[in-house]
Amino acid sequence: MKLNNVDIEDTFAEAFDIFVSKFLITAATEKFAKIAADETVGFGSSVIMCPAEAGVDRYIPPSETPDGRPGYVVMICHPKKDELEHQLLERIGQCVLTSATTAVFDAMGDEADEKLKIGFKLKFFGDGFESEDEIDGRTVYKIPIMSGDFIIEDKLGIKKGVAGGNFFIMAENQASALVAAEVAVDAIENIPGTITPFPGGIVASGSKIGSKYKFMAASTNEKFCPTLRGKEGVTCEIPEGIDGIYEIVIDGVGEEAIAEAMKAGIKAAVTIPGVKRIYAGNYDGTLGAYQIWLEKLF
Amino acid sequence: MKLNNVDIEDTFAEAFDIFVSKFLITAATEKFAKIAADETVGFGSSVIMCPAEAGVDRYIPPSETPDGRPGYVVMICHPKKDELEHQLLERIGQCVLTSATTAVFDAMGDEADEKLKIGFKLKFFGDGFESEDEIDGRTVYKIPIMSGDFIIEDKLGIKKGVAGGNFFIMAENQASALVAAEVAVDAIENIPGTITPFPGGIVASGSKIGSKYKFMAASTNEKFCPTLRGKEGVTCEIPEGIDGIYEIVIDGVGEEAIAEAMKAGIKAAVTIPGVKRIYAGNYDGTLGAYQIWLEKLF
Amino acid sequence: MKLNNVDIEDTFAEAFDIFVSKFLITAATEKFAKIAADETVGFGSSVIMCPAEAGVDRYIPPSETPDGRPGYVVMICHPKKDELEHQLLERIGQCVLTSATTAVFDAMGDEADEKLKIGFKLKFFGDGFESEDEIDGRTVYKIPIMSGDFIIEDKLGIKKGVAGGNFFIMAENQASALVAAEVAVDAIENIPGTITPFPGGIVASGSKIGSKYKFMAASTNEKFCPTLRGKEGVTCEIPEGIDGIYEIVIDGVGEEAIAEAMKAGIKAAVTIPGVKRIYAGNYDGTLGAYQIWLEKLF
Amino acid sequence: MKLNNVDIEDTFAEAFDIFVSKFLITAATEKFAKIAADETVGFGSSVIMCPAEAGVDRYIPPSETPDGRPGYVVMICHPKKDELEHQLLERIGQCVLTSATTAVFDAMGDEADEKLKIGFKLKFFGDGFESEDEIDGRTVYKIPIMSGDFIIEDKLGIKKGVAGGNFFIMAENQASALVAAEVAVDAIENIPGTITPFPGGIVASGSKIGSKYKFMAASTNEKFCPTLRGKEGVTCEIPEGIDGIYEIVIDGVGEEAIAEAMKAGIKAAVTIPGVKRIYAGNYDGTLGAYQIWLEKLF
Repeated sequence: MKLNNVDIEDTFAEAFDIFVSKFLITAATEKFAKIAADETVGFGSSVIMCPAEAGVDRYIPPSETPDGRPGYVVMICHPKKDELEHQLLERIGQCVLTSATTAVFDAMGDEADEKLKIGFKLKFFGDGFESEDEIDGRTVYKIPIMSGDFIIEDKLGIKKGVAGGNFFIMAENQASALVAAEVAVDAIENIPGTITPFPGGIVASGSKIGSKYKFMAASTNEKFCPTLRGKEGVTCEIPEGIDGIYEIVIDGVGEEAIAEAMKAGIKAAVTIPGVKRIYAGNYDGTLGAYQIWLEKLF
Repeated sequence: MKLNNVDIEDTFAEAFDIFVSKFLITAATEKFAKIAADETVGFGSSVIMCPAEAGVDRYIPPSETPDGRPGYVVMICHPKKDELEHQLLERIGQCVLTSATTAVFDAMGDEADEKLKIGFKLKFFGDGFESEDEIDGRTVYKIPIMSGDFIIEDKLGIKKGVAGGNFFIMAENQASALVAAEVAVDAIENIPGTITPFPGGIVASGSKIGSKYKFMAASTNEKFCPTLRGKEGVTCEIPEGIDGIYEIVIDGVGEEAIAEAMKAGIKAAVTIPGVKRIYAGNYDGTLGAYQIWLEKLF
Repeated sequence: MKLNNVDIEDTFAEAFDIFVSKFLITAATEKFAKIAADETVGFGSSVIMCPAEAGVDRYIPPSETPDGRPGYVVMICHPKKDELEHQLLERIGQCVLTSATTAVFDAMGDEADEKLKIGFKLKFFGDGFESEDEIDGRTVYKIPIMSGDFIIEDKLGIKKGVAGGNFFIMAENQASALVAAEVAVDAIENIPGTITPFPGGIVASGSKIGSKYKFMAASTNEKFCPTLRGKEGVTCEIPEGIDGIYEIVIDGVGEEAIAEAMKAGIKAAVTIPGVKRIYAGNYDGTLGAYQIWLEKLF
Repeated sequence: MKLNNVDIEDTFAEAFDIFVSKFLITAATEKFAKIAADETVGFGSSVIMCPAEAGVDRYIPPSETPDGRPGYVVMICHPKKDELEHQLLERIGQCVLTSATTAVFDAMGDEADEKLKIGFKLKFFGDGFESEDEIDGRTVYKIPIMSGDFIIEDKLGIKKGVAGGNFFIMAENQASALVAAEVAVDAIENIPGTITPFPGGIVASGSKIGSKYKFMAASTNEKFCPTLRGKEGVTCEIPEGIDGIYEIVIDGVGEEAIAEAMKAGIKAAVTIPGVKRIYAGNYDGTLGAYQIWLEKLF
């Protein structure tokens, strides 16, 4: 099918099960909430070699947070539940507790499959001087620190979510694909319950499974590298007239959120001049639990 | 001594050996160089529970980079050399190689004790399609990816550096200490070869070694928690009239760089109304290799 | 009364009639929408010597804009209707039409007292090559430019609004007042139909009417200058223990919006340690049409 | 000639005389220096309908400013000297004096043709409570305000400079031209003594002198509007294969600075895929005092 005169390939994004956490970091100012959120979700593009996949979901204004301060909802994801718990303890303990003026609240609410005792465990940093309190009907711990008290909710909800929602933007040059990727990320930012974990939300380097080097589990997907077109030994699968490709990868609380994000991102991307084709990555359905077909989104 | 009418305590910062890497991330635009740098140094406040200590050193304008594009120098530090190498491979592989339009160059130059073959190892992602090239007299690898070629220098220099340079800002209230911490970080940002690895460069939660809970290796330093003043069982060591404390922690390429950063930061902090006293953290000289005395800085 | 242990003075903000415009600037990316909005509202803190009072109301995500792109609602205000029209033509013509990828839509909707033919007039820049079109049920003009087409809605609504809503934050030092001002601005940002036109939303220099210099219509309000306390010839009106003062000034679409913004800002400001007292500026009711009493807000 | 395989047209940028001011705005933090600078240079893209042409020259770190605080050098330009003085008084009086924690210092130094008594005149806001002082060998005035003292240097230097340095980036699509414009602006940012006064440094809408509508002094340059290609009555001058054009306009302290900025910007722009051709705007040498030939830059 065509969308704004851009080819939408008849294919699907193959996505996977993953455990997802979603919590709110507030701070005195929007600036400090952002600083804590960014540190917390850093080094979190892909679990291939990062300890988690993580990103900022969205900004929450002071009027809508439990403590009346500006905040960001962040999501941290991992295929293994105990690793996710580990990551929550480490990332909140090292990147939020240490941040100026911050507090942490659950943002999964009723969607949660399970509540992890993250606040309960981190409160021991208080060395016995911590205390229980209540904010906005939530059980929280107050941990005395040098700059006042750090507040964290007793339990943070997690759920089974979806990783690896994706689509690829093919354009007549790299710049066009890049701008299209930027506008797609801007559009997805607004979809609750989703993150685009790669840097700036954009993947510059797609990969295939395996490599001619035995020690590499994954390697560049040479069939989709514009600079390898026509090179000996390469079966180029990039259509004529395409010279730039970026991928958007999405993790989310569920298949519906992922689909909504893919739809919003693709709708935005196809408005950019030079974009020729949208496709999606899959393993013929052999690996992932979810198949999100591009054409069905529209 | 007094500086701008603020007490500078007669004490020293106790700092430690650490292995330090320093490299340059360039990109087509300043925006994308910043995105890649931020992702790369995230989840990197303290090796207590983070996989590395990491931060942005400074911005390098296009006229001064090997490829004529804007860039940020970042530093990644770890007490163990092999762990540092690991972190470089993982963070560059997952957070820079995947970022739009980026390249990586050594920024340690002649200061290096040793050159690690980071580019050489990451090039295998190219699955045999990578190639050697030269940019500005440097040996680099071109790795074909979806959006063009990723460029990375063959070897990245590391050296023995210094971790844990520090000073504490005590002020009559938390807001004053916070603004003083912000201005200190702005001042340090300009000192080459140093980073302030905590979120926004500021530590909100100082810790002591040990805890009444046996399973905790470190815990809040209750003697310096304003909200515990006068509480039973707490020997408060915060002087009268102080109600807010923030710490600045600095990692650097050497003792001199750390000292310069501490000096610049303290000089800036004492200009903020409400700041009363600057001190530094140490273990009576029992743990660290370096003693940086505050009074000697001025 | 007291709010979070901070004195709320029993006084009122005296506010004035002003003509207010409110429109939406969209662009391909959030970045370019912000660039255009910032340029458009610059040099717009106070009509004392600026050609208008102007500011960014708030961000609108792609899913809620007429053209499905990210945007910012901005407000431009002037006491004279014809001057406001002038400012709209100049600021949109020079700061939005010239900006990359932008479009302009009315954001006053049914609230408008009147619709000004801003798009209709700016379309003549098209030199006859402009054309009428419809987007999301709105009549727009497409003006061909070098980078594609600039889109602007035929008419932009204005209404009689309110200028000079205000409150003052008094704290034990300047840093505390400053952080409190920042959190107040963050809180107000979220209130639709209001702007804080001064730089960063904060006024550092309150003024009184008149001066000992005959050529000055306004001058510093020495009674509220902390550095003049105890100086000969100065009747200091700053309470003991106060050493820093900042003012927040608010323009809005109506008295209710102003009151809501004042309430949100004060509620946020009083949470900051060191803040002692909130008051408001007035001329004993002799000049302005509106009296917004602080105590009635709570 | 060709540069990186992009056509550099054999033509020149025609530039004009303009009066230029250049001064430094410092503040407690980089954030507040930026806020003040941005407000000061807003509504300042072109003197066609803006009251001045203005922009941020560059960031100056604390170690290099007269008061040891972070700052931004800004430039304000106007063809008439008395109008420039007016603009300095208004923009500094309304956008810097009112900004939190700011100070103003001359940044023209020995380059100045003349020193305007801007600080001397603004000091009267102090209503007799102002005082003279010296900072770093400079005569300054301290004006008491609510939040402390505002500091401004006695005199600010101006000189005859150059306006309207320019080049056009033509690319195979709008996105490619836009990214090229962004990288050009990033490169020019680093050239001292130059600004790119349009929003984000980029001009989206080139104009020609005159119009079929008698009341319009300037109108869209239909010969360079991609969406008008092939339209009746339009003599399209856009080469085949070009679909996006952006212009960069530069003001500077002199012809040499302008030339250096044009060179840096063009060198950066031609690295972006999809860019086909660089040209420059002129009036056949009939209007401007300066002819900057593109080919001579390289």
